[in-house]
Amino acid sequence: MTAARIDLRSDTVTRPTPAMLEAMFRAPVGDDVYEEDPTVRALEDAAAARFGLEAGLFCPSGTMTNQIAIKAHTEPLSEVICEQTSHIYLWEVGGIAFHSGASVALLPGKRGRVTAAQVEAAIRPVNVHYPTTSLISLENTHNRGGGSCYTLEEIAAIAEVARRHQIPLHLDGARIFNALVATGQQAEEYGRYFDSISVCLSKGLGAPVGSVLLGSRAFVQKCKRIRKVMGGGMRQAGYLAAAGLYALENNVARLADDHRRARQLAEALTAQPYVAEVLPVETNLVIFRLHDAHPADQFLAQLQERGIIASSFGPQMIRFVTHLDVDDAMIASVVRALNELAA
Amino acid sequence: MTAARIDLRSDTVTRPTPAMLEAMFRAPVGDDVYEEDPTVRALEDAAAARFGLEAGLFCPSGTMTNQIAIKAHTEPLSEVICEQTSHIYLWEVGGIAFHSGASVALLPGKRGRVTAAQVEAAIRPVNVHYPTTSLISLENTHNRGGGSCYTLEEIAAIAEVARRHQIPLHLDGARIFNALVATGQQAEEYGRYFDSISVCLSKGLGAPVGSVLLGSRAFVQKCKRIRKVMGGGMRQAGYLAAAGLYALENNVARLADDHRRARQLAEALTAQPYVAEVLPVETNLVIFRLHDAHPADQFLAQLQERGIIASSFGPQMIRFVTHLDVDDAMIASVVRALNELAA
Amino acid sequence: MTAARIDLRSDTVTRPTPAMLEAMFRAPVGDDVYEEDPTVRALEDAAAARFGLEAGLFCPSGTMTNQIAIKAHTEPLSEVICEQTSHIYLWEVGGIAFHSGASVALLPGKRGRVTAAQVEAAIRPVNVHYPTTSLISLENTHNRGGGSCYTLEEIAAIAEVARRHQIPLHLDGARIFNALVATGQQAEEYGRYFDSISVCLSKGLGAPVGSVLLGSRAFVQKCKRIRKVMGGGMRQAGYLAAAGLYALENNVARLADDHRRARQLAEALTAQPYVAEVLPVETNLVIFRLHDAHPADQFLAQLQERGIIASSFGPQMIRFVTHLDVDDAMIASVVRALNELAA
Amino acid sequence: MTAARIDLRSDTVTRPTPAMLEAMFRAPVGDDVYEEDPTVRALEDAAAARFGLEAGLFCPSGTMTNQIAIKAHTEPLSEVICEQTSHIYLWEVGGIAFHSGASVALLPGKRGRVTAAQVEAAIRPVNVHYPTTSLISLENTHNRGGGSCYTLEEIAAIAEVARRHQIPLHLDGARIFNALVATGQQAEEYGRYFDSISVCLSKGLGAPVGSVLLGSRAFVQKCKRIRKVMGGGMRQAGYLAAAGLYALENNVARLADDHRRARQLAEALTAQPYVAEVLPVETNLVIFRLHDAHPADQFLAQLQERGIIASSFGPQMIRFVTHLDVDDAMIASVVRALNELAA
Repeated sequence: MTAARIDLRSDTVTRPTPAMLEAMFRAPVGDDVYEEDPTVRALEDAAAARFGLEAGLFCPSGTMTNQIAIKAHTEPLSEVICEQTSHIYLWEVGGIAFHSGASVALLPGKRGRVTAAQVEAAIRPVNVHYPTTSLISLENTHNRGGGSCYTLEEIAAIAEVARRHQIPLHLDGARIFNALVATGQQAEEYGRYFDSISVCLSKGLGAPVGSVLLGSRAFVQKCKRIRKVMGGGMRQAGYLAAAGLYALENNVARLADDHRRARQLAEALTAQPYVAEVLPVETNLVIFRLHDAHPADQFLAQLQERGIIASSFGPQMIRFVTHLDVDDAMIASVVRALNELAA
Repeated sequence: MTAARIDLRSDTVTRPTPAMLEAMFRAPVGDDVYEEDPTVRALEDAAAARFGLEAGLFCPSGTMTNQIAIKAHTEPLSEVICEQTSHIYLWEVGGIAFHSGASVALLPGKRGRVTAAQVEAAIRPVNVHYPTTSLISLENTHNRGGGSCYTLEEIAAIAEVARRHQIPLHLDGARIFNALVATGQQAEEYGRYFDSISVCLSKGLGAPVGSVLLGSRAFVQKCKRIRKVMGGGMRQAGYLAAAGLYALENNVARLADDHRRARQLAEALTAQPYVAEVLPVETNLVIFRLHDAHPADQFLAQLQERGIIASSFGPQMIRFVTHLDVDDAMIASVVRALNELAA
Repeated sequence: MTAARIDLRSDTVTRPTPAMLEAMFRAPVGDDVYEEDPTVRALEDAAAARFGLEAGLFCPSGTMTNQIAIKAHTEPLSEVICEQTSHIYLWEVGGIAFHSGASVALLPGKRGRVTAAQVEAAIRPVNVHYPTTSLISLENTHNRGGGSCYTLEEIAAIAEVARRHQIPLHLDGARIFNALVATGQQAEEYGRYFDSISVCLSKGLGAPVGSVLLGSRAFVQKCKRIRKVMGGGMRQAGYLAAAGLYALENNVARLADDHRRARQLAEALTAQPYVAEVLPVETNLVIFRLHDAHPADQFLAQLQERGIIASSFGPQMIRFVTHLDVDDAMIASVVRALNELAA
Repeated sequence: MTAARIDLRSDTVTRPTPAMLEAMFRAPVGDDVYEEDPTVRALEDAAAARFGLEAGLFCPSGTMTNQIAIKAHTEPLSEVICEQTSHIYLWEVGGIAFHSGASVALLPGKRGRVTAAQVEAAIRPVNVHYPTTSLISLENTHNRGGGSCYTLEEIAAIAEVARRHQIPLHLDGARIFNALVATGQQAEEYGRYFDSISVCLSKGLGAPVGSVLLGSRAFVQKCKRIRKVMGGGMRQAGYLAAAGLYALENNVARLADDHRRARQLAEALTAQPYVAEVLPVETNLVIFRLHDAHPADQFLAQLQERGIIASSFGPQMIRFVTHLDVDDAMIASVVRALNELAA
């Protein structure tokens, strides 16, 4: 039964709570292609206001919000600067090239975080042989970096480079609320630094489907046509948007619990003889490396026998993710299982 | 109040009935990116079985299912044959060029329907100057053609050309159920002729969001990666899929009512002195042309004063659409209003 | 031997005269990627000045100059208006979609010529479902239209529509000199109407390789990067440019001879019982249709037995082209052969 | 006067010798779009035979041959593995994304050379989130790596990985003849390892314009249509091809002189106090780094005052290139100038 299993693969697997479901099915809806779905508009406005930006666009996924933003900011024969393990480059099917015909400048980050100096050095000079640098994109928290968070100072320095060179700055905020809760930063400060932000509702926030792309009114207007061509123009999408609205109001502060549980897992892992390294845990992601003698596949299979599922994250690398559907009892079960495996 | 208005703009504007909402609310869901949403899979399987094809892929819109199919069938430097007013060419933001880098051969159809001879003549010979013909796409019913339907004989003849030239054949079935109900054709016959079919759930069927793309198992597997890059990979999408499943079971036969009501509107229109021409009504679309002395904008404004909204469809052209949320009383109101306008 | 054959396939087949060859091999050259080839620059400047535009860009083919212009004027999610048999759509391998990701609006012209009213009606309104009209492209003379010429009044009317809607206007001038010679129009008037002009040097002008793209200085600067990515940045290209310069000075007026010879061919064809129709001849192209009883392939084979080669141009359609390497004696031979075939 | 200057910027700047010009002038030509230029075909055949491959395609530049090959081998939603400073990624205007819609996996090489293990680790697993690895591309000699050469053993190991994974292997052979002369490798061995090779004629070989793309007959056939859409279909291109043929026969062995002169420059540079580092010199490229106290711009300006021009190659980095138009006397002048600057 799936009911019994403990699913640490991703925070995307959560199912709505009864209260969220209730909110969804009471939502007033309309045809959002005609811009007449009141719940979608309420979500877009709420998310934009929260982050200090003018407007929002509800989309079926974070891949879509990111790829729309990239397409809107760039044109062919240009180049996007991002970290070399960023989601937009690594896990979005090469969408930067596919949708936007744009090249990538890939920076080696420190657990996914890049510096203003790195960004500035990657901006292409004017030369007939070069694409034009058209976008800088950050990811916060950084997935591949183990849920690491930028400081606002780091962001401000990169934003200063971006503005000086008149290059827009995008944030892949798939787990931005984890960053806000972990660092105590205010969401509305982000609107000062970023030209566009993709906010995911279906990860830690627990909504079933959707992300919101935020930016200026003109930017979002431009993005609507791109959403249309990508097939993201939905009709009575208010049912999904209602879950997002509910999540924004009710599921943010509780991310601190996920972070605490992630730290508990990290502590338990650090104690295991078969674990070679655990990346520092800042939020809800726990990435660790097994000793060479312990194949990742075998380890995952042993966990699965104990009703625990997780993701391989490269050779010998494993990722655990805590989320709304993982409670303290489950964490205790996982710790027990990890100890058993050492025996 | 929107509650009172009669909305003839499109069959996309319908809102779920309580029974459909109930089905949505009770649906078991999972993470569909991990292929674990049972309701999504049930819908995909049901739709595929209905049309005699192997597999299905649930997507947030018909634009997405069409554009994914086009991308999957074609490659750059190729050309898609379609009717010159087909939805995939006219109303999908130039997506054929944008997503697929493919050219179009545009055939003048008879109310949107093209013949096997036209299709065959449009296939490009082998020549270094030419793109390669890679796809033939039909639309049934044909929107711009006024909801006109193909006969199975016409389809079979085009399919024969397609097979002889080894060119895949796609169906934009945004309103395929209207065609089936109007003609008495069987859905499963379509799987014999088409390599892929896009079936919309949020038009006449009344589901809030979504379309299903049908084809062979290998085709759908290929399409999954394209859906991912387009941002159509949704998580707990079962809530939406449940509405589609409900609609497949409950809302097909009733399309006959929409067709009857469309004919009533056409009769009333034909009698009006300000109407120059009414296209033959085969399904739920009524397209008509006003006499030159009657500007379309003014006509639509006069209807709106009477609580009726409809769409402009080109200079002097108007489209009325009947659907789940338009009942006999509303039709009577519209007829009254049309008569009033003549006075 | 190819020496003996009369080649009416295209005006692209000409070989340089001794005087042109002499000019080529005396040309001073340099590395044009560094913008240091004096002969290339001289050609670019001369062509621009001739047509009343600021700057030029030498490229290896007319397909490249056209496709660069289209790419420079448009962006993805936009649409190009052109005649439905124009070279840029029909014979450039679907390059509009491939390079520019742009859609096409295809107008039915009168022997390839479209009207201002047609163009204006094809401009897309603002709507989330539509690409944006980003370019209007004309072809003069029009190849598929049988070498037909626009009047300046027709061009001015289209340019007025273009400017009113702020849409750039491009000219595919593959055979613009034929139009100028046939109509007595002045080249420099074209710079008033067109934002960019592609001028071919290797057709009627007789140069071995190359076209020049003309426009404003800023436009040409933008085009240089597109030429680079397309692989059109050549090094010591001055040898080719020298032929173009020679042709501009020496081979324009003589196009009148080609036109006269084309008319002679048309007269001879009109008298043949196997010819159903000869398109009006305005320049150096003669397009005619054979009676159904006379297959085009057989006709071409019979000509070839007599040392004459020509091109099929669709079912039952044949194209003859006169050019620098076809003299009066050859025309007489062709007329004799045509008469023989009637016997 | 340019006559007097010593141009170390690139081996692209050479001008044909009288003997090469003579060969060009005498070349028989035809319309190569009709595949009737005998000199072009002779060059294509000669180059293919030399490298042990079936067929060749003459193009106006190495950027075009590389980009055509990438387009022919890949499709959108795929990924190309190459070194992070390779020419195809860094200096071809982002053409991989622009033409092919393909992503890049960028490997950090050792002076531009990557290993079989690196390549294998970069091949993407099958996953809906990933593009498919569709091409591995090497560059030999490697420009940014300072003209470094692969051993055949290194190439064989990478080719083994490529074949095992059924991924084609391309060679950017912009300076492949330098590699052959420097290592004593045989050209025909390359055809065993590579599916396609781009061979440049206008660098060390001294031809004015052009590159040849080599591969199987089917591959080259496919590439012809791509060359056409990119605008690389030239008419009487035999004049250029003749220079390439001449170069293949006469200008290969003499590359050893360029390499000897490059080593002389490297020795002189190593002795200068203002030079921090000189990359090992294997062929005709000399890349060196100035001490921080010596700005590159100022250094280049001082050289220019002495009639010597060279290229900046990144902060504090300079590149000197020896070639056909740089003789021993010029090298002596440059060494004198370098010594003067130290004083």
